[in-house]
Amino acid sequence: GYGRTGVIYYEDSVLTGTDPLTLSEGSDSQVISRLRMNLDASTSTDAGVDFGARFRLQWDQGSGSRGDDASTNAGKLFVTASGLTVEVGNVDTALDSAGLLYASELGSYDRSVGGNALGAFFAYESSPYSNVDRLGVAVKYSVDNLTVRASYVDPDQSGLVEDTAVFGDVKEEYSVSADYTWNDRLELSGGVALNGAGNDDHDVYFVGARYAVLENARIGLNWIDNGDAGSPVGLSSTDAEFDGLVDDLGSTVALYGDYTLADGLTNIEAYVANNSGDWAAKETDNSFGVGVNYDLGGARLGASLQRDYQERVTADMGVRFNF
Amino acid sequence: GYGRTGVIYYEDSVLTGTDPLTLSEGSDSQVISRLRMNLDASTSTDAGVDFGARFRLQWDQGSGSRGDDASTNAGKLFVTASGLTVEVGNVDTALDSAGLLYASELGSYDRSVGGNALGAFFAYESSPYSNVDRLGVAVKYSVDNLTVRASYVDPDQSGLVEDTAVFGDVKEEYSVSADYTWNDRLELSGGVALNGAGNDDHDVYFVGARYAVLENARIGLNWIDNGDAGSPVGLSSTDAEFDGLVDDLGSTVALYGDYTLADGLTNIEAYVANNSGDWAAKETDNSFGVGVNYDLGGARLGASLQRDYQERVTADMGVRFNF
Amino acid sequence: GYGRTGVIYYEDSVLTGTDPLTLSEGSDSQVISRLRMNLDASTSTDAGVDFGARFRLQWDQGSGSRGDDASTNAGKLFVTASGLTVEVGNVDTALDSAGLLYASELGSYDRSVGGNALGAFFAYESSPYSNVDRLGVAVKYSVDNLTVRASYVDPDQSGLVEDTAVFGDVKEEYSVSADYTWNDRLELSGGVALNGAGNDDHDVYFVGARYAVLENARIGLNWIDNGDAGSPVGLSSTDAEFDGLVDDLGSTVALYGDYTLADGLTNIEAYVANNSGDWAAKETDNSFGVGVNYDLGGARLGASLQRDYQERVTADMGVRFNF
Repeated sequence: GYGRTGVIYYEDSVLTGTDPLTLSEGSDSQVISRLRMNLDASTSTDAGVDFGARFRLQWDQGSGSRGDDASTNAGKLFVTASGLTVEVGNVDTALDSAGLLYASELGSYDRSVGGNALGAFFAYESSPYSNVDRLGVAVKYSVDNLTVRASYVDPDQSGLVEDTAVFGDVKEEYSVSADYTWNDRLELSGGVALNGAGNDDHDVYFVGARYAVLENARIGLNWIDNGDAGSPVGLSSTDAEFDGLVDDLGSTVALYGDYTLADGLTNIEAYVANNSGDWAAKETDNSFGVGVNYDLGGARLGASLQRDYQERVTADMGVRFNF
Repeated sequence: GYGRTGVIYYEDSVLTGTDPLTLSEGSDSQVISRLRMNLDASTSTDAGVDFGARFRLQWDQGSGSRGDDASTNAGKLFVTASGLTVEVGNVDTALDSAGLLYASELGSYDRSVGGNALGAFFAYESSPYSNVDRLGVAVKYSVDNLTVRASYVDPDQSGLVEDTAVFGDVKEEYSVSADYTWNDRLELSGGVALNGAGNDDHDVYFVGARYAVLENARIGLNWIDNGDAGSPVGLSSTDAEFDGLVDDLGSTVALYGDYTLADGLTNIEAYVANNSGDWAAKETDNSFGVGVNYDLGGARLGASLQRDYQERVTADMGVRFNF
Repeated sequence: GYGRTGVIYYEDSVLTGTDPLTLSEGSDSQVISRLRMNLDASTSTDAGVDFGARFRLQWDQGSGSRGDDASTNAGKLFVTASGLTVEVGNVDTALDSAGLLYASELGSYDRSVGGNALGAFFAYESSPYSNVDRLGVAVKYSVDNLTVRASYVDPDQSGLVEDTAVFGDVKEEYSVSADYTWNDRLELSGGVALNGAGNDDHDVYFVGARYAVLENARIGLNWIDNGDAGSPVGLSSTDAEFDGLVDDLGSTVALYGDYTLADGLTNIEAYVANNSGDWAAKETDNSFGVGVNYDLGGARLGASLQRDYQERVTADMGVRFNF
């Protein structure tokens, strides 16, 4: 797991919201910390097959579901042999695991308000499920420089909750993704989630590539079709302000790169993203950010400065350590 | 702890229930997984007395209390010296710990829809208590081939909640059990729980024996008086369909055995059970099942096929690994 | 962490309360157990800076928030270098960490109904927060025999909840404390919490000293100004019986000491405390207690007998073991 803490600044009280009575705004800056502990267990059979399992304890300052205490989550079980891994339960989904999907993230908080996907899809769930009948199955196969994944998540396997008109986002999500590294310099990554996060006919597509132009410099390009259900930054598809019929999340193209200074410890990173969508609060098609990380050897200091599609500025600075 | 996953089939939507509005039935087959992690801690004094404690994290696919995330539970504290163990808190109760009580269970899921006790009694609780004043105390003593146990569980030690007419199942449960192994071939086991699970005058009695007729074959016989509060498979004593005054759980006799093939890895097992009770949904006095387990060395594959007292068929297949 | 169990007796059903309907009293004696497991993780950078984090799992028999199962809590993150420790999140507050503040506690349960502070202040929180926006920051510096601490806890960092007339105890608590040991014989300790536990203008002050008169005997004196918000033993400032305007928690002076017998294992301890406050249920200004602990080497047996400010007698006996 890991721990991280620091300060995040976001214009217009995005982090705290507005007092419903007085309409006064909360602070733009918040101390935001996370503590994540993975509880892993595993065993090997005589034939060299590995069985394993994971729980996670995670606390997130200010989170609605993980803010008051360390949240436990649903378990993941897996079996691995000869490069093939099969997971059951709370699985790592295919699209969410695509190698470059989050490559435009900056700083110690790994945030990218413009370059990340806006469309919803299932991922490994750190909070409790909202449905005890949610089921996930995933497969991963790695050989040489190629990794392919497929996953299936049924929001309710009981068969009693199938009508989306009545029950909402209960369609089965199908997802695949692949990563390939060529000559240690070119990374290719792509994936798709159909019925993303259980939303009927909401599909997310992703392709990306990153190339090491120098030994200490990389440049990448991501393209994401966000589908039509999800949450533009600071706004969710369940908000009254978001109208799924009128609003459109469009597709996102992100150009990003990073450069390591001669000290070998300081890493400068940046992205520029363009989104073709159209929703009420949107004010610009362009988002961008710059960030820096300094390697402490076991921990890292980081900071970023970004602007989102509502032309709001956000900045963060903090420290992150793995254990 | 351990992990297990696979598929359970149960006729008539026993696993999922029926939609209350449309009366349509859910799926008969469900992927059912469990992940259990025991968190143990212990210390030894200079005099060789061991103190220890346990929490458990458990997730059960589809469970009402442990389905959304890993449930934590109440703690168990114990002290051990010279074969004597005293437990306080969330204890392993005497009857539940009887060596042969669950000996008719089959497959990787360790299920026995006909051979297990139908009457209710307290056990080590993996879910949160429903009452912060529940108290358990247990004693275990082992010498040579003999183990005896006694336990006491007060559903509410405050002394404010004593009237069963007002508060329900709040009587103190007393339980004892014993196991004896003779000549490494014959196992004898028996136990009793008075006021089982806090139900006034509901007593469960058990005796069982198992004999190794060959080095790789065992045969056993269990007798259980189920008392008058509990849950026939797929039906609970709190269900409207179960009428404690009219319905009768009777007693159960189970004949069971297992045989290990010449490969030393494949274990075939089976049981036939007869229940003398009488409740509305019951359709037969006989239940039976066959199962198989294949040892992977650290994990095992298993399957079973069974029929319950409502003449419903259930089958399961899966894998289980310990860690 | 540690486990402890045993029996606590407290006159007038303080532990269980009274049945609201029948007004009958609950038991005066209760089996009270606690199981605490700290989940610690840490890492060190190349430069020798240590980063660490902690979650806690704790179960307390009979506790409203930790009685049904092991409660998880909010995380603590810290960084340590050259004697300086900075904590963020669920921090150890300065006053609560003062070395002698709890020095009058007796027996295996570490209870002091008369000598402990009655006024409220924040401490490391074992239960879930009641507000996801609670933020704590603490600093500790140790050099030679001196340790100084400062802490800051904001019950709600969002900036939306600031008006104490509307939201209650939401002021920021500031706290400092220091400990000094002179010549290995004299311990000096002091601290203060301003706006204790978020209560406006409620300040708690503490100074204490303990001197080793012999190698096996120590005597100490504590003085605490309890401020005007808190909970007299068996009574909370939120109880109807407690009127913050009329009632006064006063200040407490406690004289305490302990003596180790020649066996080097048995430790006798006692305190006498005088409180100058005045509240409805108070019947005496003097409280006292005697206790004993017997070291098992890794565990300890302990007992105490005490009288509180309502002239109620309480006694406890139990065992505690660390792991």
